[in-house]
Amino acid sequence: MKIKKQVEDLLAKVREKGPLVHNITNYVTVNDCANALLAIGASPIMADDIKETESITSISSALVINIGTLNERIVASMLASGKKANELNIPVIFDPVGAGASEFRNDTTKEILNQVKVNILRGNLSEISFIAGLSASTKGVDVSEEDSGNDAVAIAKSVAKKYNCVVAITGAVDVISDGEKVIRISNGHKMLSKVTGTGCMTSALVGAFAGAEDNNYLTAAVAGVACMGIAGEIAYIAAHEIGLATFHIAIIDAISKLNSEIIEEMAKFDEE
Amino acid sequence: MKIKKQVEDLLAKVREKGPLVHNITNYVTVNDCANALLAIGASPIMADDIKETESITSISSALVINIGTLNERIVASMLASGKKANELNIPVIFDPVGAGASEFRNDTTKEILNQVKVNILRGNLSEISFIAGLSASTKGVDVSEEDSGNDAVAIAKSVAKKYNCVVAITGAVDVISDGEKVIRISNGHKMLSKVTGTGCMTSALVGAFAGAEDNNYLTAAVAGVACMGIAGEIAYIAAHEIGLATFHIAIIDAISKLNSEIIEEMAKFDEE
Amino acid sequence: MKIKKQVEDLLAKVREKGPLVHNITNYVTVNDCANALLAIGASPIMADDIKETESITSISSALVINIGTLNERIVASMLASGKKANELNIPVIFDPVGAGASEFRNDTTKEILNQVKVNILRGNLSEISFIAGLSASTKGVDVSEEDSGNDAVAIAKSVAKKYNCVVAITGAVDVISDGEKVIRISNGHKMLSKVTGTGCMTSALVGAFAGAEDNNYLTAAVAGVACMGIAGEIAYIAAHEIGLATFHIAIIDAISKLNSEIIEEMAKFDEE
Repeated sequence: MKIKKQVEDLLAKVREKGPLVHNITNYVTVNDCANALLAIGASPIMADDIKETESITSISSALVINIGTLNERIVASMLASGKKANELNIPVIFDPVGAGASEFRNDTTKEILNQVKVNILRGNLSEISFIAGLSASTKGVDVSEEDSGNDAVAIAKSVAKKYNCVVAITGAVDVISDGEKVIRISNGHKMLSKVTGTGCMTSALVGAFAGAEDNNYLTAAVAGVACMGIAGEIAYIAAHEIGLATFHIAIIDAISKLNSEIIEEMAKFDEE
Repeated sequence: MKIKKQVEDLLAKVREKGPLVHNITNYVTVNDCANALLAIGASPIMADDIKETESITSISSALVINIGTLNERIVASMLASGKKANELNIPVIFDPVGAGASEFRNDTTKEILNQVKVNILRGNLSEISFIAGLSASTKGVDVSEEDSGNDAVAIAKSVAKKYNCVVAITGAVDVISDGEKVIRISNGHKMLSKVTGTGCMTSALVGAFAGAEDNNYLTAAVAGVACMGIAGEIAYIAAHEIGLATFHIAIIDAISKLNSEIIEEMAKFDEE
Repeated sequence: MKIKKQVEDLLAKVREKGPLVHNITNYVTVNDCANALLAIGASPIMADDIKETESITSISSALVINIGTLNERIVASMLASGKKANELNIPVIFDPVGAGASEFRNDTTKEILNQVKVNILRGNLSEISFIAGLSASTKGVDVSEEDSGNDAVAIAKSVAKKYNCVVAITGAVDVISDGEKVIRISNGHKMLSKVTGTGCMTSALVGAFAGAEDNNYLTAAVAGVACMGIAGEIAYIAAHEIGLATFHIAIIDAISKLNSEIIEEMAKFDEE
């Protein structure tokens, strides 16, 4: 079955099942993540304290770990929930926001990758380059110019093999790989980088797709990334003349209106 | 005086007095709660640390406790502020988000209800069923299908009597009771459940109404719930064809434009 | 060079350089602060834990400290980051949200002013009156009526001299002073006080301007305050008939569309 059709079918499953997605995430973009999950048809829950995080993970269909704003209390919860998810075969999505930008983020990223079996890793080229062991020059939470020449395909494949997971590197062209297959997505618009949380929302959407069907990590990653890219294109047309906040709103509007026809018409996948 | 007129008068008082409402709440929907309070005419303040929470409560006209994202530091603040509010006769509104979904939420819910005199309790049918001692099957923070057959009127009355408070169970038809009187509200739209924070905002609005006049808990609960329901209907008409984020924006727009005429025309109350 | 031209030039520099602005801020308005920074052309990063806060400050072009929601963990980070910024000559902007409203906020405000060399202090008249040692009657996080008669010019000058910094008091007419020069800005609209976070966003914008050029504190403060005022006027025209949330969105839209022509035409500066 072609990847486009798989994504369409998976969206239908998200809408039908409404998977509960547990997010341990940052306080900057958390509202957008919750609303993006509702817009795609999933049900969000946020809980980050060790006193409940494992039990919340246990009732969820996917766990999304995002290190956008870290502290030690939350890191402990991420590790505990990650292990619980592994135990119960609940998919774990990891978004290493700002990996490379501070020792704390670097150490936490390594700790999560070493202690938790991550099923899908989504980040920008700087963040995934850091994980690949390359000298990433992460500038805050955005991709740095120095890293923009790195070979995303080679990095995605190598990291996917190393951690036996699916890697999604988002950028002008998104690259998703399970270590063997590589899928490129040419959707999106550069204006997406001018709204905070579009990366975080993408990871949350990947969680919704991973939570709707067992063992579909590659399709789930492609679906989440493609939905954000398509929504960005629709939002750009609707809103770029008005301004960034209207564009922000239009992204979530577009996610809520996505359907098979739109994916069929707009998705630009390139398999190899 | 009929309830509709009481709600209209109370809205005028909120707009005139601009009550300061102290919110100890979650980090997912906190921005919406603050903006909903401003939209209805109140003044929000958020403070959750034990080093200031009691003094912030002391200068406020109402305290809204919402357990959407919990940790032990904040629970201590909730209890301290709740007791301080009781001491000073400041109304306490409690929103037991996700009660039934984890032991930590269950224990915290019981602790708050045991140690603090709650004046108004607002939740969905799963959350209030849990408090009623029924076997709630809370699925995350949304009402679960298993609970949807529970008798909201009986539960609201029984919990209101048990805790000597006003109980508001929001759903397709909202049920508000002080243990004797029961008011049903048939406003709202199911699309409200597709935006995170509409429940939290409802509790915040109830806080604004409770803070505008002494000892008006039943009317305050009805007013807060009705305002969200009416705003949802207006927003649905304005925005449902565009998408969920525009609907989200339109809800707060509608709250800011509410007035006596709109309430007079749109509110659907059923007293018994 | 006239102040208007300086502001226009500084905006061009922000857009060209995209300064990274580190925000240690509250969880109520943090998303708006990030999006306002992106809208003006800067790059936001939020990090508040002692394990990384100094290293994040070190890679940033400005540090914005905002005490809207405090706890001891974050206060330690504010002090550490502030000292690190001083050491590296990175500008420090301080927004003493709610100073005067609780002992904890008062003590933290004093601690920051005593231990960190603040370059730009931005607050409302109640907050800056508190710092001036006047008996401020801060009502929550909004300016109190009792303080509205205070002489903003005298207070701004005196606090600026005392702490050897630039002080920006925002209100119906904004007053910015370095202790000698005084600039009044007559932009803005009172509807701005009906959206949470317009003050916080103003401080964030000041951080963007301060981070784009060395030692330009007075111009940076004027630029940040003026941009919010102008954006408020544009948003008012676009959105006041629709409602507060659309107005909120229109503010950030307007920030993203600001340019020299708009500043040239709309900015109302009064130098003395």
